[in-house]
Amino acid sequence: MDHYLKESILSERMNYIDTSQIRKMFDLVQKLKNPINLSIGQPHFPTPEPILEAMHKAIQEKKTFYTITQGIPELREKLVEKFQKKNHIQTSTDQILISSGVSSLLLLLFMCIVDPGDEVLLLEPAFLMYRSLISFFRGKEILLNQNFNSEDIKNFKFIKLKMILFSSPSNPTGYILKKDQILALAELAEKTGALLVSDEIYELYDYEKKFISCGSLYPKTITLMGFSKSYSMTGLRLAAATGPLEIIRSLTTLQQYTIVCAPTPSQYAGIQALDVDVSDYIDYYKTNRDLLKKELQSFTEFYEPEGAFYIFTKTPKNIPDLEFCEYCINHYELLVVPGRIFTNQNYWIRISYAVEREQLLRGIEALKKIYKNEFSN
Amino acid sequence: MDHYLKESILSERMNYIDTSQIRKMFDLVQKLKNPINLSIGQPHFPTPEPILEAMHKAIQEKKTFYTITQGIPELREKLVEKFQKKNHIQTSTDQILISSGVSSLLLLLFMCIVDPGDEVLLLEPAFLMYRSLISFFRGKEILLNQNFNSEDIKNFKFIKLKMILFSSPSNPTGYILKKDQILALAELAEKTGALLVSDEIYELYDYEKKFISCGSLYPKTITLMGFSKSYSMTGLRLAAATGPLEIIRSLTTLQQYTIVCAPTPSQYAGIQALDVDVSDYIDYYKTNRDLLKKELQSFTEFYEPEGAFYIFTKTPKNIPDLEFCEYCINHYELLVVPGRIFTNQNYWIRISYAVEREQLLRGIEALKKIYKNEFSN
Repeated sequence: MDHYLKESILSERMNYIDTSQIRKMFDLVQKLKNPINLSIGQPHFPTPEPILEAMHKAIQEKKTFYTITQGIPELREKLVEKFQKKNHIQTSTDQILISSGVSSLLLLLFMCIVDPGDEVLLLEPAFLMYRSLISFFRGKEILLNQNFNSEDIKNFKFIKLKMILFSSPSNPTGYILKKDQILALAELAEKTGALLVSDEIYELYDYEKKFISCGSLYPKTITLMGFSKSYSMTGLRLAAATGPLEIIRSLTTLQQYTIVCAPTPSQYAGIQALDVDVSDYIDYYKTNRDLLKKELQSFTEFYEPEGAFYIFTKTPKNIPDLEFCEYCINHYELLVVPGRIFTNQNYWIRISYAVEREQLLRGIEALKKIYKNEFSN
Repeated sequence: MDHYLKESILSERMNYIDTSQIRKMFDLVQKLKNPINLSIGQPHFPTPEPILEAMHKAIQEKKTFYTITQGIPELREKLVEKFQKKNHIQTSTDQILISSGVSSLLLLLFMCIVDPGDEVLLLEPAFLMYRSLISFFRGKEILLNQNFNSEDIKNFKFIKLKMILFSSPSNPTGYILKKDQILALAELAEKTGALLVSDEIYELYDYEKKFISCGSLYPKTITLMGFSKSYSMTGLRLAAATGPLEIIRSLTTLQQYTIVCAPTPSQYAGIQALDVDVSDYIDYYKTNRDLLKKELQSFTEFYEPEGAFYIFTKTPKNIPDLEFCEYCINHYELLVVPGRIFTNQNYWIRISYAVEREQLLRGIEALKKIYKNEFSN
C-alpha cells in the first residue's frame, strides 16, 4: 500500500463514519433485473410543471451566477409568508438562510454547534444522517424513544447537551410529534441551553393533519424546511432554515466559506414551488399507506405511520434485519432498508410506500409470502 | 441576551472564523450608486448558450431527482477524457467525484484530512477560503512564498504536514506554478506523506499557455477542477475532483452524508460545457490584463499576472489596505479587495479585470488619479 494512502492520511473523525454494512446490500441490488423497490427515500411523482417552467425561465433570464450567501431576497420573502401562514412561525427575511438541501443545513449546524464530547439528543428511531454526523463530529448520541412523555426526560442526566434534533413527520417511522412532547423538549432546551432543531422536510406528508411546527410553540427553534420531498425536486438541492438571528448569522458566515450558495435557478424555482398544490400526490400516498398498513397488521408489528412515507416494521420472529433484507433481495427481488441504521435494535426494517400503486401491490404480495409462509412456524 | 444565544452555544471552532474586517467594506459598498467594481470573483460574460440549452434539455427530461453520490457516469466519463487530453492526467471514472463547486470539495477535503494541529502548507499569497478552512478546522497554516525554489522548502521543519494546497493559476496573484516547483512540492509530499492538492479552477485563464497540471507530473495529486470560472456558471454549483482511488472513495462517503449530490441539471449541463470554446473570452481578459498591467507598472508594483483574472498590487506608499480600500470607495466609488485576507502583509490589494472594457478603463482612470495625485509625494 502506498505510504500516503495509509489510514493515517485521513483525519481521526474519518474512523467514525462507515457505510460498509449497507454497501453489501447495494452490491446485491446491482444484480437485480426487475426489483420491487420499497427502499426509496424520495417521492415517485415528477417535479410539478410550474416548477420546471420556473427553472426554464430562470435559465432563460441568465440566473446562473452566484447569489448572495443567504439566498435571494424574493425567495426569503416568500418563505417568511409560508412560515407565518402554514407553520405559524413568526420570522423575517434576515432570519432565513437558503442552502443546498436539508443535508447541507445539517452539516452547517453540526459544524457550528457540536464540539467533540457535546451531547446531542435524538428521538429514536432517528434519521441515519443525524447519527452519522454526531459520530463524525465526535459528539455523544443520546437516544430518547419517540413515544416519550415529559416524565421520561427527567431520567436523563445531561452533562453538556448542545442540540436536540428530530424529524417530524419522522423518517423512518412516520411519527408526528405531539404538542405536549414539543413543549417538554422546549422546556428541556430552556433548562440546558441546548439548541432545539426541528427537521420538517416531510411536513406536507401529514395524512390526518396532526402536524405542528415546533417553532409555532417555541420561537427559539431552528426550523429546517426542504423543497426536495414536498415538491419532488430532490436533485435541485434547495432548502431553508429559520430561527434566532444570531444562529442564522453564524450559519450564513459558515456557508460563505463552504457551500457558498444554493443553486441559483433552483432558488428562483423555489418561489414558484411554494404555490404548487401537491395534495393529489399526498392523497395517493395516504391510500398507499392505508393499503400497506392494512396488510401488515395481519402479520407483523410496526410504529403507527402518521406521516412521511415509511412504515417501520418488525422483522418476522425478530430475525436480524440484514439477514432478512438479504433474503428479500435474493428470493423476491424486494428492497427494503435495514432498521439498524436508525436504531440500536437490529430487528426492524423501513418500508417506503412512495411508489406507484402497482409496485406497492407487488411488494405487499412478496411481504405476505415472506412473513406468512417462509418465516411462519 | 438570551441564555442560549450566548457564545457558548457555538462550537469552539466558530471562534476561528471571522468576516468582520471585510463586512465593514461591504457595508460601505451598499450606499454606492454607480460603482466601478473591480472586486468581482467571477467572469462577467454570460453562461454560453449550449450550456443553457443543456440545462433546458435536462429539465425537460425531468432530470430533477437525486443522482448517485459520486455523480452521473456520463459526466465522469467525459471528465476522464478531459483530464487525459487537456491535463495529461491518467484517471478513471471510479477516481472522479462530482460535487457542488470547488468550495464543497475543499470542505470535504478538510473534513476528510485535517485534524486539529495538523499542518497545511499554502503558497502565499493564498486564496482566503484555504486560510479560513485551516483556521476553522484548527489546523496550522504554514505559508511558503509562491516564488519559492526547491532550496527554500528545506528550511521548513514540518512536524505533521497533512496537506499541501495551492491554486495555479493563482487567486489572488495570477501566478502559474513552474515545473520545478511542482516537482519540489511532489518530493515534499512523498517525503512527509502529505496530500498534494492542486486547485485548477482558473486553468483556462492561462494567457501564455504556461499552465501545467500538477497531476501530470505527480499522479498522487488530488486535482480540483471547476466549471464555475471556466464556463461562467458560478450559480450552477458544479466541480469535480480526481486523484487516488482511496481518497476519492473517502470523499464520496463523506459527500453521501453531507452534500448528497451536485445539482442534477447542472451535472447534465456539465457534459455539454466541456465542449464549449471560451477562447474569445479568454482573449478579452488577456487584453484587459495587458491594459491594466501597462498602466499599473508606471506607478506601482505587483506580482506578475500570468493567469486567472486578478492583479495583486501594492498600495501606494504601503498604506494599510483597509484604509486604502475605504478611500477608493469613498472618493471614487471604486471597489477592490484588501489583500490581508490572502497574506499576512497588509499593504496589498487584489484588482479583478473580469469586467467589461469600459468598466476597466474607468477603474484605470481612478487608480491613476489615486496613485499619482492623491498619494504622490
